[in-house]
Amino acid sequence: MTVNYCLRRAKSFFGDTIAIEDEDRTLTYHEFYAEVERSARKLAKLGASKGDRVALLMLNSPEYLELYYSTAMAGALIVPLNTRWHVNEIIFTLSDSGSKMLFVDERFAALVPEILNAVPGIQHFIYAGKGSSPSGLLDWKSQADPGVPKNFPEPDENDVAGLFYTSGTTGGPKGAMLTHRNLYSNAIHSLLPPGGLFSEGKWLHAAPMFHLADAGAIFGLTLCGSTHCFIPSFDPVAVMRAIERHRISTLVLVPTMINMVLNHPDLPNYDLTSLRRVVYGASPMPLPVLRHAIDTFRCEFVQGYGMTEVSPLLTRLQHEDHRFEDADREFAPVKSAGRAVMGVEVRVVDHNDQDVAVGQAGEVIARGPNVMKGYWNRPEISAEVLRGGWMHTGDLGAFDEHGFLYILDRKKDMIKPGGENVYSPEVESMLCAHPAVLEAAIIGIPHETWGEAIRAVVVTRPDATLSEDELITWCRERLTHFKCPTSVVFTDGLPKGGTGKVQKNVLRDKCGGAAAG
Amino acid sequence: MTVNYCLRRAKSFFGDTIAIEDEDRTLTYHEFYAEVERSARKLAKLGASKGDRVALLMLNSPEYLELYYSTAMAGALIVPLNTRWHVNEIIFTLSDSGSKMLFVDERFAALVPEILNAVPGIQHFIYAGKGSSPSGLLDWKSQADPGVPKNFPEPDENDVAGLFYTSGTTGGPKGAMLTHRNLYSNAIHSLLPPGGLFSEGKWLHAAPMFHLADAGAIFGLTLCGSTHCFIPSFDPVAVMRAIERHRISTLVLVPTMINMVLNHPDLPNYDLTSLRRVVYGASPMPLPVLRHAIDTFRCEFVQGYGMTEVSPLLTRLQHEDHRFEDADREFAPVKSAGRAVMGVEVRVVDHNDQDVAVGQAGEVIARGPNVMKGYWNRPEISAEVLRGGWMHTGDLGAFDEHGFLYILDRKKDMIKPGGENVYSPEVESMLCAHPAVLEAAIIGIPHETWGEAIRAVVVTRPDATLSEDELITWCRERLTHFKCPTSVVFTDGLPKGGTGKVQKNVLRDKCGGAAAG
Repeated sequence: MTVNYCLRRAKSFFGDTIAIEDEDRTLTYHEFYAEVERSARKLAKLGASKGDRVALLMLNSPEYLELYYSTAMAGALIVPLNTRWHVNEIIFTLSDSGSKMLFVDERFAALVPEILNAVPGIQHFIYAGKGSSPSGLLDWKSQADPGVPKNFPEPDENDVAGLFYTSGTTGGPKGAMLTHRNLYSNAIHSLLPPGGLFSEGKWLHAAPMFHLADAGAIFGLTLCGSTHCFIPSFDPVAVMRAIERHRISTLVLVPTMINMVLNHPDLPNYDLTSLRRVVYGASPMPLPVLRHAIDTFRCEFVQGYGMTEVSPLLTRLQHEDHRFEDADREFAPVKSAGRAVMGVEVRVVDHNDQDVAVGQAGEVIARGPNVMKGYWNRPEISAEVLRGGWMHTGDLGAFDEHGFLYILDRKKDMIKPGGENVYSPEVESMLCAHPAVLEAAIIGIPHETWGEAIRAVVVTRPDATLSEDELITWCRERLTHFKCPTSVVFTDGLPKGGTGKVQKNVLRDKCGGAAAG
Repeated sequence: MTVNYCLRRAKSFFGDTIAIEDEDRTLTYHEFYAEVERSARKLAKLGASKGDRVALLMLNSPEYLELYYSTAMAGALIVPLNTRWHVNEIIFTLSDSGSKMLFVDERFAALVPEILNAVPGIQHFIYAGKGSSPSGLLDWKSQADPGVPKNFPEPDENDVAGLFYTSGTTGGPKGAMLTHRNLYSNAIHSLLPPGGLFSEGKWLHAAPMFHLADAGAIFGLTLCGSTHCFIPSFDPVAVMRAIERHRISTLVLVPTMINMVLNHPDLPNYDLTSLRRVVYGASPMPLPVLRHAIDTFRCEFVQGYGMTEVSPLLTRLQHEDHRFEDADREFAPVKSAGRAVMGVEVRVVDHNDQDVAVGQAGEVIARGPNVMKGYWNRPEISAEVLRGGWMHTGDLGAFDEHGFLYILDRKKDMIKPGGENVYSPEVESMLCAHPAVLEAAIIGIPHETWGEAIRAVVVTRPDATLSEDELITWCRERLTHFKCPTSVVFTDGLPKGGTGKVQKNVLRDKCGGAAAG
């Protein structure tokens, strides 16, 4: 089955239901389907053929949703770009993916000249933002509908539908190739009992639509005939206002976002009683915050755990498993990531891919129709992470006797400030590039707002002087903001194991305290 | 995903839940899984290798369930035989499938000598019935567990899991090759919203387990951790007694069975209040009977429509769509087969496979991961019915504007007495084989108990004499009982169209009245 099927079904069964409810318009599924068909024809006319990559650098909008479906209908691959990336990473991804077209909105149109120089392969820069197009860009809305082709061939379910870039398990951004079947299967998994995530009602795209935490919900929502609502990007007031205005029933938020809403002084002024369920995930959520959130929103909370490479859902913690009274037990479901969703097999294994005993730690691996085809143009890394037909997540976990999965650590040495993946070697390389730095490592430390913050532990060269501010500034000039350390600890030497590898656990014990920051 | 996954999941998540509750024992999913492993090892020891066919000629029992899973675990193909077949059809099917083993129970052990002579390729006749084995048969329960192999390789999802024989769309029994993915997908479709069929609770295998109307439920039930209960074969008192005794929540019954329970004088003596849902299907259900059933059982009624070749579910009529107050409208959902289940695409097309308009009649075709791989050893017929990637059901249907499907006629000329498929040409050939018959056709006529009964319309040879009883007896000596006409109308000639084909619609109008029978 394909992504296209999801929309066809919605048109057939929910034709008169509102598909899109935005600031200035509503579209039924019949109307939205017609719009997607026009959009696919316009893409084809601009030269998007089967297998071509079409990149999007846009905030959330109905056009984002339209392009998820119309690229699929035209047989092209969508390449959603992280809107928080540094322009260098955007350029790398556009080049690596070989994207033929780039869609931008009002927020990103100004980057086009720089991208244009750096990525000559892009044939069309298309403006799909609000208002009319800045000069030099194709204006998407005013493109005429060529009227042909009348019908697009149905893709094979194993055709790639999109490249979703992620830092993944080993160094540098890589495009996870997600097929039609991958994305469709994830939608099905999200709908299966117990506690399927979606139903009729209204969904707010509040988390970024380039990321599968939100985008993975698109296809399941469409299958159910849900109504899609949007805010351009996360902002606590915008979320509260949209929930009240549209009577939103469900949305996905990362813990950082939930915390910002909870702590906003205007919270009592908004009517959030339409909420039936909040889905959260992408990074650990401190229990006091979770409890506070459930008490405040008075709706179901469901945790999802997964990753881009599996489209993205692996496990789900149902609302009824949030039992805080058990929280001081070592294995209390409320501290877990839940159980494998129906349709996905999850195991915890040792270095030889053999199952470890219940309660023992090992690497989390997964198998199912939602597991990516591989990384774009990275056959060796793909073969490595998919060895034996199982996706090796790089996360360290343990099962309890009831099949609840506890994520213990990230084997792949990743830090997740605000739910974003930060791959340590990249940041450590940049720190070490400073003339005054001898060696450096980064660790994640608990942070009330962001879940995790990045701390650099640094050994300076014998004769050098370096301040915390200087080093942070050095990083900010060279790296995406969320990858930069927010605190620096200076030390005489880094603890190392027998192979010379920095012992991050020792480092966390020694330098991870709040007092040091 | 595979059939094996369904049981693995139940073991992991519902290990302490009762999997089987029978007259004399209960087994948890942990225990049942261990039993299936033993069963698969015993099969392997007897020589069941990957791809081998293992046939079952048994009434419903826990062993039937065990063998569905253990043949799959051993990599073999299950071949469930219709327990109502004439021995000639059983022999044909065993030969056609090349079955290597045959399991029988106390009901069918006596047929073994006849089968043994006719199908020399069968290496083992195995007794898996009650009590000890008759002489000459391997006693299944007393076979020692060889202890090896410890683990069986996981089958590929596109491996065939079973051959399910059906008269299908064109002449003679054919084995529909259903893959692991086919059966798994059907399970998933049955669980998806709206109104997924199964949940925790107890299911009664009352309809025959050789048929996918019941057997198709096995895998979805297992995924949910439901408890399986059994009666050997349908009998209204046995059903009522089992519902009361086990506190059954759900079961599937064909309309004939429902009618027999409804009309049984002991109905008021049984406590059926545990029932939450009755799934019905396989043949049309007269509205007065349906209404009476809902009023009597006081639980949800859900209709399923499908066929063996699609594992078997295509559409579902939800309980809430049984609105009798609309029944005199031409397109009233209560008269429909419901809407396509999520995961399956259903279309109504003309002779060129082009969609017909809403309200227009055409052939029902379907696409999805539940559509069979093809018919065993019948590449031409397989290519024909699966042309363009769509299963051509041979049924004539029409959609209303809300996507409800109305089955108008069976293009493939099939009659369904008591839910069994009777393929007209086979019966007509037998009628015409009688020396006194010039030409003959059969039609289905409404029957209060069986839904449909078979009527033969016959033209005798000019100088011959033939009575209704003589002709019915002729058939009963040569055909499975349910395929035999129950009434005969003699006429001067059969109405024919331009191509010489008998016009069944005209025939039904002329000879289908109750007065004529």
